[in-house]
Amino acid sequence: MKIIELKETVTASNDRDAEVLRGELKKKGTLLVNLMASPGAGKTTLLERTIRDLKDELRIAVMEADVDSDVDAVRIENIGARAVQAHTDGMCHMDAGMTRRALEALGDEPFDLVVLENVGNLICPAEFDTGAGKCVMLLSVPEGDDKPLKYPLMFSKSDVLIITKTDVLPYFDFDIDACVQRARKLNPTIRVFAVSAKNGDGFEAWEEWLKTAVLNWKNETVTE
Amino acid sequence: MKIIELKETVTASNDRDAEVLRGELKKKGTLLVNLMASPGAGKTTLLERTIRDLKDELRIAVMEADVDSDVDAVRIENIGARAVQAHTDGMCHMDAGMTRRALEALGDEPFDLVVLENVGNLICPAEFDTGAGKCVMLLSVPEGDDKPLKYPLMFSKSDVLIITKTDVLPYFDFDIDACVQRARKLNPTIRVFAVSAKNGDGFEAWEEWLKTAVLNWKNETVTE
Repeated sequence: MKIIELKETVTASNDRDAEVLRGELKKKGTLLVNLMASPGAGKTTLLERTIRDLKDELRIAVMEADVDSDVDAVRIENIGARAVQAHTDGMCHMDAGMTRRALEALGDEPFDLVVLENVGNLICPAEFDTGAGKCVMLLSVPEGDDKPLKYPLMFSKSDVLIITKTDVLPYFDFDIDACVQRARKLNPTIRVFAVSAKNGDGFEAWEEWLKTAVLNWKNETVTE
Repeated sequence: MKIIELKETVTASNDRDAEVLRGELKKKGTLLVNLMASPGAGKTTLLERTIRDLKDELRIAVMEADVDSDVDAVRIENIGARAVQAHTDGMCHMDAGMTRRALEALGDEPFDLVVLENVGNLICPAEFDTGAGKCVMLLSVPEGDDKPLKYPLMFSKSDVLIITKTDVLPYFDFDIDACVQRARKLNPTIRVFAVSAKNGDGFEAWEEWLKTAVLNWKNETVTE
């Protein structure tokens, strides 16, 4: 497994770099998903289960972005998917140039789906377009249902909100309806899934959405 | 309750500004604690219980820093403590100048302890000295025991690590010993407390430490 050391990209426009990268990925038929959440919301655990379920249908790779360590990339490789670990030189997010370099580190093999597991952070990653075709955010039940009020940009920028760790709902005061209402106030079209990687609840719907998104991306139709 | 809108401080040296602020607070006998954690780790809940327990012994105020909303400051005022809500203009941390302006918004009343509840984030807040006398970080059980590996600077910069939500230990794979070992590898002198705000476990030890820290700060002896 490769570990790459990245530095912030010095460029005139991250937005333009992201558009160019998105266009290139579109041509290749590769959907890049930018997966964002707080530390410990369950990004890697969601990916482990999703990859296990879909690896016979889709060619999937994962780019892990962290300030340090390679524990997540090792977990992904342990289930047989290609992974690369990107270190962000202390930075709290990935930009389009860093994402491009991480993609290059994956090599030339074609993938249907590449997931960028962004740095654990509900603020900075939302401010930088990485070139992804879809942005997916996770909010775990233990974090609380008030998070859309405090981190509005993340909820506004995401195509999908996945509420994770629903198996522990009985032990926390988390009102799913209130949370979804707050998220929809910021982003009326956000798709919401509620899942538990422990018992598998909700994974069918999320994986169905993901497969359709990959298919739509390849067919160059507008995805939902 | 006051809401103040802050902008990043433009200054030659944040470190110097922080030293000046720390000196001023020392003269006043006010201990400023910089409380840092991921979103949803339980910062406000910890403060609510701590303030309830100590408000007859210490004059306490809280500065809530968030990108948006005032839910946390309202919670603190509901238990009868002075609070101010600072909005960070999208920024992921507080610097020394922002902290100074938030302190000014608290007014002239003397306090023994002022807690800055920093923006929910395990990366950026660790990079900026706020002028605090003590840095305290929270890591909640649901976030996982691997966090010292991924966010080393936060663990290195903190005087105290509080492991929160220990009441849900049975439902998560969280190894306290492994976590503490990882934290101590980065920071051999870090003090560790494990608490549950739901059942009160561990609060006595944490509050004892906090009272001693306030006392030591006032007496100008070196705090432990």
